[in-house]
Amino acid sequence: MDFNILRTARAVLNVTDLEASKKFYVDALGFIETETVEDRIYLRGLEEHTHHSLVLQKAETPSVEVISYKVYAEDQLQALAKLFAEKGLDVTWVEEGEQHAVGRSLRVQDVSGLPVEFFAKMETVERMLQRYDLYKGAKVQRIDHFNCMVQDVQKAYDFYIEELGFACSEYTATEKDEIWAAWLHRKPSVHDVAFMNGKGPRLHHIGFWLSDPMSLINACDVLASMGYTKNIERGPGRHGLSNAFFLYLRDPDGHRIELYNGDYLTSDPDFKPIKWDINDSRRQTFWGHEAPDSWFNEASEVLNIHSGEPVALEDGKLKQRKPTFVI
Amino acid sequence: MDFNILRTARAVLNVTDLEASKKFYVDALGFIETETVEDRIYLRGLEEHTHHSLVLQKAETPSVEVISYKVYAEDQLQALAKLFAEKGLDVTWVEEGEQHAVGRSLRVQDVSGLPVEFFAKMETVERMLQRYDLYKGAKVQRIDHFNCMVQDVQKAYDFYIEELGFACSEYTATEKDEIWAAWLHRKPSVHDVAFMNGKGPRLHHIGFWLSDPMSLINACDVLASMGYTKNIERGPGRHGLSNAFFLYLRDPDGHRIELYNGDYLTSDPDFKPIKWDINDSRRQTFWGHEAPDSWFNEASEVLNIHSGEPVALEDGKLKQRKPTFVI
Amino acid sequence: MDFNILRTARAVLNVTDLEASKKFYVDALGFIETETVEDRIYLRGLEEHTHHSLVLQKAETPSVEVISYKVYAEDQLQALAKLFAEKGLDVTWVEEGEQHAVGRSLRVQDVSGLPVEFFAKMETVERMLQRYDLYKGAKVQRIDHFNCMVQDVQKAYDFYIEELGFACSEYTATEKDEIWAAWLHRKPSVHDVAFMNGKGPRLHHIGFWLSDPMSLINACDVLASMGYTKNIERGPGRHGLSNAFFLYLRDPDGHRIELYNGDYLTSDPDFKPIKWDINDSRRQTFWGHEAPDSWFNEASEVLNIHSGEPVALEDGKLKQRKPTFVI
Amino acid sequence: MDFNILRTARAVLNVTDLEASKKFYVDALGFIETETVEDRIYLRGLEEHTHHSLVLQKAETPSVEVISYKVYAEDQLQALAKLFAEKGLDVTWVEEGEQHAVGRSLRVQDVSGLPVEFFAKMETVERMLQRYDLYKGAKVQRIDHFNCMVQDVQKAYDFYIEELGFACSEYTATEKDEIWAAWLHRKPSVHDVAFMNGKGPRLHHIGFWLSDPMSLINACDVLASMGYTKNIERGPGRHGLSNAFFLYLRDPDGHRIELYNGDYLTSDPDFKPIKWDINDSRRQTFWGHEAPDSWFNEASEVLNIHSGEPVALEDGKLKQRKPTFVI
Repeated sequence: MDFNILRTARAVLNVTDLEASKKFYVDALGFIETETVEDRIYLRGLEEHTHHSLVLQKAETPSVEVISYKVYAEDQLQALAKLFAEKGLDVTWVEEGEQHAVGRSLRVQDVSGLPVEFFAKMETVERMLQRYDLYKGAKVQRIDHFNCMVQDVQKAYDFYIEELGFACSEYTATEKDEIWAAWLHRKPSVHDVAFMNGKGPRLHHIGFWLSDPMSLINACDVLASMGYTKNIERGPGRHGLSNAFFLYLRDPDGHRIELYNGDYLTSDPDFKPIKWDINDSRRQTFWGHEAPDSWFNEASEVLNIHSGEPVALEDGKLKQRKPTFVI
Repeated sequence: MDFNILRTARAVLNVTDLEASKKFYVDALGFIETETVEDRIYLRGLEEHTHHSLVLQKAETPSVEVISYKVYAEDQLQALAKLFAEKGLDVTWVEEGEQHAVGRSLRVQDVSGLPVEFFAKMETVERMLQRYDLYKGAKVQRIDHFNCMVQDVQKAYDFYIEELGFACSEYTATEKDEIWAAWLHRKPSVHDVAFMNGKGPRLHHIGFWLSDPMSLINACDVLASMGYTKNIERGPGRHGLSNAFFLYLRDPDGHRIELYNGDYLTSDPDFKPIKWDINDSRRQTFWGHEAPDSWFNEASEVLNIHSGEPVALEDGKLKQRKPTFVI
Repeated sequence: MDFNILRTARAVLNVTDLEASKKFYVDALGFIETETVEDRIYLRGLEEHTHHSLVLQKAETPSVEVISYKVYAEDQLQALAKLFAEKGLDVTWVEEGEQHAVGRSLRVQDVSGLPVEFFAKMETVERMLQRYDLYKGAKVQRIDHFNCMVQDVQKAYDFYIEELGFACSEYTATEKDEIWAAWLHRKPSVHDVAFMNGKGPRLHHIGFWLSDPMSLINACDVLASMGYTKNIERGPGRHGLSNAFFLYLRDPDGHRIELYNGDYLTSDPDFKPIKWDINDSRRQTFWGHEAPDSWFNEASEVLNIHSGEPVALEDGKLKQRKPTFVI
Repeated sequence: MDFNILRTARAVLNVTDLEASKKFYVDALGFIETETVEDRIYLRGLEEHTHHSLVLQKAETPSVEVISYKVYAEDQLQALAKLFAEKGLDVTWVEEGEQHAVGRSLRVQDVSGLPVEFFAKMETVERMLQRYDLYKGAKVQRIDHFNCMVQDVQKAYDFYIEELGFACSEYTATEKDEIWAAWLHRKPSVHDVAFMNGKGPRLHHIGFWLSDPMSLINACDVLASMGYTKNIERGPGRHGLSNAFFLYLRDPDGHRIELYNGDYLTSDPDFKPIKWDINDSRRQTFWGHEAPDSWFNEASEVLNIHSGEPVALEDGKLKQRKPTFVI
């Protein structure tokens, strides 16, 4: 491959009330507000030296404009564009200057219909890792991964692994050994992106990494004291799959955020992907808790990279919607 | 008063399989096994210098023989006996030597029908507080409180406060301002005993104190890795009432154990009991989680102090069985 | 005894720069500022329902005006006054209204020359225990104890135990079995006050309780990020004696503050005081670290309750100044 | 480059008493003992799926046989051998079967004289990450990095960056802007190897990664309870450089082990190495603690890859031995 995708880099979300979003992300979760320019808030985690990992932009309805990956060098974008053209995928270029703080970027409606973006350059800013006096709420450290609901997990899996160079760390298989969900990575963590069978394409959640488990417990307390109990959708708990200590939140527009800590190093090519039976109750929640229905059914709509209109949804190809033990 | 009840001291539980109990309490929860004598296992927490705070004895069916409080001096037992006689409560004496490692004790079927015991003396043993090399599982530190389901909370409340000298830290009131549940203490913590309206008399749970919140998270992981996911009934979460970080477990016989950390000092007579509306969702779980039905409906049967037969149950006097938000 | 001393309640410290003190105690340590009235800042911990546990008042030089205990009821002050009179100790009364937010108080220059105060009433305020959105820095929960350097530990020990009703939890003995230091309590924790052999009478430190060990680690990070590295005198570490996880800080005037977590319940009269050999290195620091010289030599001057002048100092009666392993 | 070094993989240490080592590493630190074959103990961390990350072999005197990196594929070893030959470095091959559980390996006496090994294959074993019932002591998760004392840091820096493809995350510079120490990585963490100016070549320490800060505090308690207080050399503390929460231990032979948690993701090529002034006291210990002399002076001897004899030592090229603030 003539390109090197480094990692999950940022998401651009449409939200309906910037003040409400700011209170949630900055005051409660502890994101650093890099700056607000017109109708966009640019947020970053405490250890991030890049301008932002989350853009919240004012819109009529909530949706996802794009999810972005960082590549090693800007000239690699051409190689990606060539690949997408060969595969018949629709792309568009966003030139430097068109997006605040970001260099030239390539956008594509991927094999699942997700709006995906690649770029190499972003303005750098002061890293707040050792400004402990500014830590608050969940003390979010950095963006970690995307989780997407797609109609055909096998198709997404094949494309990301064979064409984009991702590796699989863990996956869930049905009784017939079909891939129901898969966790894929470029950086050596459990994932940069996961794909789950379901009505899609939709963004299920964005995962942000915390430095330790107590920060997650502290986050629950702070959220509750600020009146956000209804925004705590699931957790805290331990995922069997990935080993992550997790908390799922819904932001004021319903976008789902995962606070996340506790996965492991996946640098080695001889690490054999871990297979989980979809009906193994410890896969989802190691401690045995059931996820609520909303967690399986609800996700954020994504937009067409050209028209900005919502992408039409199709049901997941595999009949099984969720594990038997929660049905 | 001519007596000084110090604190919650121990419970004597009937269990059906000593080996199964031992694996749960010793291997998974980290209790220290002081000794096993015939059909009884004597357990204590890591900071306890007294012989035991939990007795598990082999029986045909699970039940509660007695829950015990420690008093300041043995001669105070007479004053307690006199009080109970005046109030028409049935007592029995267990002489020193009749119970292993415990001095003379006074047993009473209390105003709610609960089998309650008072004693002043227990053999002392090595405290394991600084034997960190022996810590495992939940690292249980010490017994903290009992929670009992009773038919008439007001009656229990009045007796324990006016006659036995307990103080109330927090309570839950119905819309009509009746006491639905109350947390009462002798040691200056939130409680040594709580009474909840419901089918009773039954022992709802025994609370054990942990030294820090991470021990509770570690306990979840250890329990799950040992196959005890179905024994995790509720939590981890934060109680609004008491501020405790909690985990509710069911032992192999269904007895409920609470792992507990995070309450506060209640030494001051000018501390006004905190009143919670039963329908305030943050009371139960500060983070907004709902307790499962089993938590409201199931509890351990208690025995008659004379006959050893199960005490007959009556429904709670207040109609409301649980908060509206979980109905 | 006709009085019941409940607990360590507050200290009144003279400081030279209120702004500097406020930044240290409120911004870095997370005390709640109840209010500032003229030249006095009134601070409390997050779980405290009483008006304050620390008063910082503007003065020319740093010193300790008084350390205070709360008693059960105001009429018990007379019994204390009678006792002090019998013992030839000098007292003074401060009438209600003379001190902000505090009821009538009795002050005494105690057997060691320390300025000690007793009161029963203090205004109550909102408890911030569940206002997690206000937590910051060390998240100080409540005042826990005083540690005083005195010339004659045995004398102080005898008076506090025999006359004032304190109990001893742990003590340090010299090779000749003299008491070199003792930890005494009224509330059932390891101590409300400790006395150490040394140049005195001086206040060595005030201990404040934290709810968990991670708050102490977080405190180190926050202090360092605010430039307070030179104020971190000792720790974090574990005391063998008391089992506390500790951090010793020097405030901007040199007053020493201990952040403290991890001791145990001392409610039982059959708990035998733990004796430590002064030269056992695990007593001081369970993990083996040595305390710096400043920790042994420096402490805050105390004032005469009548004149407000510094109390003259005398060397400690026992020759040994500190453990052999740090000499 | 025609090779891809993945990460720090293992060290082979000579120790004088296998039983003493086993007690320290397995019982106190919580390493998993994969197996003991004759005079060698093979250890791994809880998340490691490879056979071992530490080999302890019986010898007359303590020393370091080799420190090893894992490469992506075995055929890349030839490219490395070619590079070393061009640079005039002495290599040797260890064929598959000669070392237990490891494939073919290439050894080289590197530019600093350190015995370094590269291999691609190691037997895989069961990962214990979710066997929480087996966790104990420090709960060591995985090997993280080596720290080496060398005579010429600039020379090592140039070779590892320009020839081996490492990237620099942070470095310490003298007043004259010479590199006094440098932290270099292949996996996107702060380092796989660090080089410090000093008498060398010697191995200063091996860093092992813990999953959370409380495991480090627990480790201190367990070590102390097992009598290992003298083995705790430095910490717990926070490094300014790397942001790591650290503890330095000396094993029974004096080999130094770092327990380590809290660094950050270094995946991005636009992350500019952080420069620290050697005399900035927060670099070493963010909280302001001084490191003991032993930490600067003592390190493990390394062996010649051919003769197995100790490599001769030379003083560090830069005069400054340690920061001014600890001199």
